[in-house]
Amino acid sequence: MNRHRGRFITLEGGEGAGKSTQVDGLRRFLEQQGITVITTREPGGTPVAEAIRGLLLSTDHPAMHPDTELLLMFAARAEHLRTLILPALEAGTWVICDRFTDATYAYQGGGRGLDMGRIAVLENWVQGAVRPDLTLLLDMEVRAGLARARGRGEADRFEQETVAFFERVRGAYLERARLDLGRYRVIDAAQPVEAVAGALQAAVTPLLEGRTPT
Amino acid sequence: MNRHRGRFITLEGGEGAGKSTQVDGLRRFLEQQGITVITTREPGGTPVAEAIRGLLLSTDHPAMHPDTELLLMFAARAEHLRTLILPALEAGTWVICDRFTDATYAYQGGGRGLDMGRIAVLENWVQGAVRPDLTLLLDMEVRAGLARARGRGEADRFEQETVAFFERVRGAYLERARLDLGRYRVIDAAQPVEAVAGALQAAVTPLLEGRTPT
Ligand SMILES: Nc1ncnc2c1ncn2[C@@H]1O[C@H](COP(=O)(O)OP(=O)(O)OP(=O)(O)O)[C@@H](O)[C@H]1O
Ligand SMILES: Nc1ncnc2c1ncn2[C@@H]1O[C@H](COP(=O)(O)OP(=O)(O)OP(=O)(O)O)[C@@H](O)[C@H]1O
Ligand SMILES: [Mg+2]
Ligand SMILES: [Mg+2]
Repeated sequence: MNRHRGRFITLEGGEGAGKSTQVDGLRRFLEQQGITVITTREPGGTPVAEAIRGLLLSTDHPAMHPDTELLLMFAARAEHLRTLILPALEAGTWVICDRFTDATYAYQGGGRGLDMGRIAVLENWVQGAVRPDLTLLLDMEVRAGLARARGRGEADRFEQETVAFFERVRGAYLERARLDLGRYRVIDAAQPVEAVAGALQAAVTPLLEGRTPT
Repeated sequence: MNRHRGRFITLEGGEGAGKSTQVDGLRRFLEQQGITVITTREPGGTPVAEAIRGLLLSTDHPAMHPDTELLLMFAARAEHLRTLILPALEAGTWVICDRFTDATYAYQGGGRGLDMGRIAVLENWVQGAVRPDLTLLLDMEVRAGLARARGRGEADRFEQETVAFFERVRGAYLERARLDLGRYRVIDAAQPVEAVAGALQAAVTPLLEGRTPT
């Protein structure tokens, strides 16, 4: 839970689950409630962080060490958090972010097998006590999500991973959600786009309660 | 002290102190003693780490957050250590590295003012117990070193810093050396190139003692 006036909402889930598809609709829904909202994504969201994203997703470097990958993820996050997300939240703006630290636990922890405790050290180093207020986990069967994602064109360095890798990613996401039902909402992402959108709106509605529209 | 067969020697010091100038001569001196040696540099030393170096030194991003800079330094170091330095040391090869973690304490700690304890968290996270066997600190008056360095052409993102910044860098280096005379040798870098080379050779000679030439 962040201590700022704006709310921090993250969208999570495996490849092709529909995160990027849903971001704009969710922003418009919140704007209709009178809220100022920005949308952003990880890794990336600022010029420096997008340059780091370029290194992370490039297929020029297939053999990057897992520790290097993890440190680059947190380097991008440090920049994004300090220069974009926190200033927005402090100004009362809500932030919707397409992937955040849960993706690091799922991909680098679950997928690559890095120790979750070592990830937590970097999370605390970079974020202090900052955590999302609400994490919307778009969950669906791995192969169906990959089929959706592969419809989009050439695969990046992560999209080239095996089904077994993405099964571990899904398992890690679901395990994190199970351990903190206060912060996570698991959404059935196999539904049609409109049904997923409705489920996301229902999930954010409790955050609106007790709020005086601006 | 690393527990491998090869020795790990780092060259440190401010801008223009002569580190890059001395690397090859020191390598040749050790080779004449029958030692297998590689030379490398930080940030960089491997393709991924050199790509990260490109982000760090680029003047396209003057406003990078200090935490981002520090995480990028350690991302490059993780890659360099795991894929180049440690495999070499394990094979019995000696490694001479132009800058290493002491530069991070000096530049990001001394120069930028980041907390030394926060740097130590990342040092331990990335390196475990690995530290150089010997660190050769080329020390000289800041303005004279900058005058040398500026003779080389366009300034990178660090070279654009103020004299006050580099005075803090120098102070941090000297303080670290003062606290661990076992690992550091402070060399007067204002001497002529040949005199500095001789001082470096004298400083590495104790590492050769008790060694059976290969
Ligand atoms: N509910 C849905 N039903 C059918 N197709 C969908 C649905 N949601 C998204 N898609 C389609 O699936 C593909 C992947 O969606 P999207 O890019 O939003 O996924 P993502 O979760 O952002 O994936 P990635 O993790 O790779 O960024 C797109 O072509 C999109 O149009
Ligand atoms: N002992 C010396 N006396 C005079 N000039 C020197 C000496 N050592 C190096 N130089 C010259 O000073 C300049 C900077 O040297 P060098 O590039 O080796 O420094 P450096 O410590 O590697 O600097 P940087 O930290 O910027 O990489 C070069 O032009 C080099 O030829
Ligand atoms: Mg997406
Ligand atoms: Mg140099």
